Amino acid sequence: MSAENNDSLVISTDPLHPANLIPELCRSFYHLGWVTGTGGGICIREGDKVYIAPSGVQKERIEPTHIFVLPYPQAPSLHADRVFLRRPPVLKESACTPLFWNSFDIRDAGSCIHTHSQHAVMVTLLWTGPTFTISHQMIKGVRVAGTGNALSYLDTLEVPIIENTPNEEDLKDSMAEAMNRYPDAPGVLVRRHGVYVWGPDWQKAKTQTECLDYLFEIAVKMKLAGLPTVLNP
Amino acid sequence: MSAENNDSLVISTDPLHPANLIPELCRSFYHLGWVTGTGGGICIREGDKVYIAPSGVQKERIEPTHIFVLPYPQAPSLHADRVFLRRPPVLKESACTPLFWNSFDIRDAGSCIHTHSQHAVMVTLLWTGPTFTISHQMIKGVRVAGTGNALSYLDTLEVPIIENTPNEEDLKDSMAEAMNRYPDAPGVLVRRHGVYVWGPDWQKAKTQTECLDYLFEIAVKMKLAGLPTVLNP
Amino acid sequence: MSAENNDSLVISTDPLHPANLIPELCRSFYHLGWVTGTGGGICIREGDKVYIAPSGVQKERIEPTHIFVLPYPQAPSLHADRVFLRRPPVLKESACTPLFWNSFDIRDAGSCIHTHSQHAVMVTLLWTGPTFTISHQMIKGVRVAGTGNALSYLDTLEVPIIENTPNEEDLKDSMAEAMNRYPDAPGVLVRRHGVYVWGPDWQKAKTQTECLDYLFEIAVKMKLAGLPTVLNP
Amino acid sequence: MSAENNDSLVISTDPLHPANLIPELCRSFYHLGWVTGTGGGICIREGDKVYIAPSGVQKERIEPTHIFVLPYPQAPSLHADRVFLRRPPVLKESACTPLFWNSFDIRDAGSCIHTHSQHAVMVTLLWTGPTFTISHQMIKGVRVAGTGNALSYLDTLEVPIIENTPNEEDLKDSMAEAMNRYPDAPGVLVRRHGVYVWGPDWQKAKTQTECLDYLFEIAVKMKLAGLPTVLNP
Repeated sequence: MSAENNDSLVISTDPLHPANLIPELCRSFYHLGWVTGTGGGICIREGDKVYIAPSGVQKERIEPTHIFVLPYPQAPSLHADRVFLRRPPVLKESACTPLFWNSFDIRDAGSCIHTHSQHAVMVTLLWTGPTFTISHQMIKGVRVAGTGNALSYLDTLEVPIIENTPNEEDLKDSMAEAMNRYPDAPGVLVRRHGVYVWGPDWQKAKTQTECLDYLFEIAVKMKLAGLPTVLNP
Repeated sequence: MSAENNDSLVISTDPLHPANLIPELCRSFYHLGWVTGTGGGICIREGDKVYIAPSGVQKERIEPTHIFVLPYPQAPSLHADRVFLRRPPVLKESACTPLFWNSFDIRDAGSCIHTHSQHAVMVTLLWTGPTFTISHQMIKGVRVAGTGNALSYLDTLEVPIIENTPNEEDLKDSMAEAMNRYPDAPGVLVRRHGVYVWGPDWQKAKTQTECLDYLFEIAVKMKLAGLPTVLNP
Repeated sequence: MSAENNDSLVISTDPLHPANLIPELCRSFYHLGWVTGTGGGICIREGDKVYIAPSGVQKERIEPTHIFVLPYPQAPSLHADRVFLRRPPVLKESACTPLFWNSFDIRDAGSCIHTHSQHAVMVTLLWTGPTFTISHQMIKGVRVAGTGNALSYLDTLEVPIIENTPNEEDLKDSMAEAMNRYPDAPGVLVRRHGVYVWGPDWQKAKTQTECLDYLFEIAVKMKLAGLPTVLNP
Repeated sequence: MSAENNDSLVISTDPLHPANLIPELCRSFYHLGWVTGTGGGICIREGDKVYIAPSGVQKERIEPTHIFVLPYPQAPSLHADRVFLRRPPVLKESACTPLFWNSFDIRDAGSCIHTHSQHAVMVTLLWTGPTFTISHQMIKGVRVAGTGNALSYLDTLEVPIIENTPNEEDLKDSMAEAMNRYPDAPGVLVRRHGVYVWGPDWQKAKTQTECLDYLFEIAVKMKLAGLPTVLNP
């Protein structure tokens, strides 16, 4: 069966099947302001398959049949982000794919979320250096490296900020470099663009994205009110 | 059959029929704060017919039978924005009609959206000159002239701002003039009033309106935080 | 049949029956932030009957059987705001009743809405005088006196602000006085409390409340950004 | 029957059964921004049983079978917050449990809500002392001590602020101390963390949380606009 019409990979009565979850989650992300105007998205890796939302479509109107499926073989040498088990005709694959792959290859993530949240963007405008930092807030929902132990209230969360490029694919190397330089970071901010957040599965990727977005939002409010976001730095 | 009760033009079981889409989209726009208090709206052109929401009604409670249908013949000399194939009794045609027509006649648009979004209005208050400009933000979802190629992150988006008039119809000429003077602009802002955005079809008109509203919102935040919205102007 | 259990007045299969509309509208107002924490509400007058939501309940969880029904006889001398055709046991009648009555008696309104919207409250804090004024905004959705002709873009909207009292009923006289002193006003703001807005029917009362709330919101933004809300005062 | 699988305690066709209400309320709290990223929650005490949402899960996706049930015997000497009538396998009990118990033991509350609302957190950042105070706002929906008489517009509401700790359980003593020191307070703020609010039943706990959140939100706006939140202190 050709990759063009391999519908069996995305048709399921299980509401937790990735091809059902991704449309539902994208609708929810739309209402959170994370994927407005076709931007942003989510991918889920289950076993040796990766499910990704298409590019350039209304994220709140995705159907299971719009989902791309890519292989993720165990052997790293076989990893390639442009091979498809299922490729819906007409639709375009997500430009985020190589960046999602970073989270799989470098952090063994099971899911990665990309948002254009204005809180994330404002953080990258108000923190002009290479990282965003915050402490003494509700950072317990965030895990070290996105997949490790939960942070403590007394820890300082540090998220690297990389510079944006016109083509999303071109962020792959600088994102990987930031992930290696900041091995404890649960995500990577992209200046004037948004954020990538990952986790061991879609549930934790989603709750960590919520936690980080919450922290970005309160950090912007604090900064504009003249309050420091890190105590005893 | 008279234009008063030509229901066959608006009764369809296809959820993507314009007479079904317009009520659904208006409900969504209501929750985005774009069409509060009866203001704003959307029109869709399909082939030689134009579908428009009525004026002065609750935009989140429109029914398919409330939709006006106007002809859009191929010959430009036959274009007229006050002829009706279907005109629901009691209801009033949208005062935006001549402005929507600008997007058809000048840009060959397939859909045009008008919002009273506060982000758009604040932009017209904080940018006191004839245009709003922004660069180095997520402007990739916006197309040159609304119907051309996608902008790049490095481009500067420029949207003209025209002055408001008490009667919406009276904006027709100044909107057309702005569209001709700024042939690359994907929309026209109206000072202290809102914005008109168009696209080749309703999907792209809607996603571009979302992109522009996102840019207006972040631009207002940046301006109030003392950050420039154009780099290396 | 006693007023305690006269259910026939509120049981109807018509979704536009006031006893069905009020719960639906209150749910919507809850999500707009207008009636949070049991505050605020709406009443609808149809012919010689007035339908009112109860006091002190979760406004997003009202059922038709919670609705109070009061008579509104034609002869003004018979008007009384504490007589009930239907009075649900356990529940308390709205303390807003005498204020709603002002809109019926003085403006012949068909519906009156009371919100605790933070935009309204902020307006009463930032405008310390007896009225709030705004011009050159989208005020076309507002009618002179709430029931007359639509305002024009060039008009100046003036809404009186009365001082709050611990008991809502005690606002009746000062609200009436403000309505008489500002006969063109479509509503009355209550300092540090909220706003009352009326219209000839529930549709227009609601869309006018939306318009005014929109104007309060943008006015607060303008004030905090140092922009005047009235041009050429 | 073991506590692991005692489903009869949480399976009910009554929508007002606590095991049905808690998931519904948590979904609503999620959309209010109170329990984003797994944080926050609610417990309901009915007779001699307490129903609590699990810890560390997506609060908008809780099912009745996720609910923990604990005994609350009449004799205070028998009170213990780590005994379970029902303990779903896999899931973790809420770390808020000892704090919820404070509201039962000290105020005889029937329900307690914990939010991470950003309005609450901002209040604890802008009010650096041991309490938050406000007067002359819509505080009528708040009750003395959370379970007593309604406050009046002229009263000053005072809510203690305790300092946060890395482990939620460790807040139990300082929360109890604050409740005893401020016997009229309807809730306790936790610096850089959120708020605990209680009431005689879930309805009043919820409406009071809404009222307090409304007051926190407007207080932050007033503070940032340079307006005092207490008149004639």
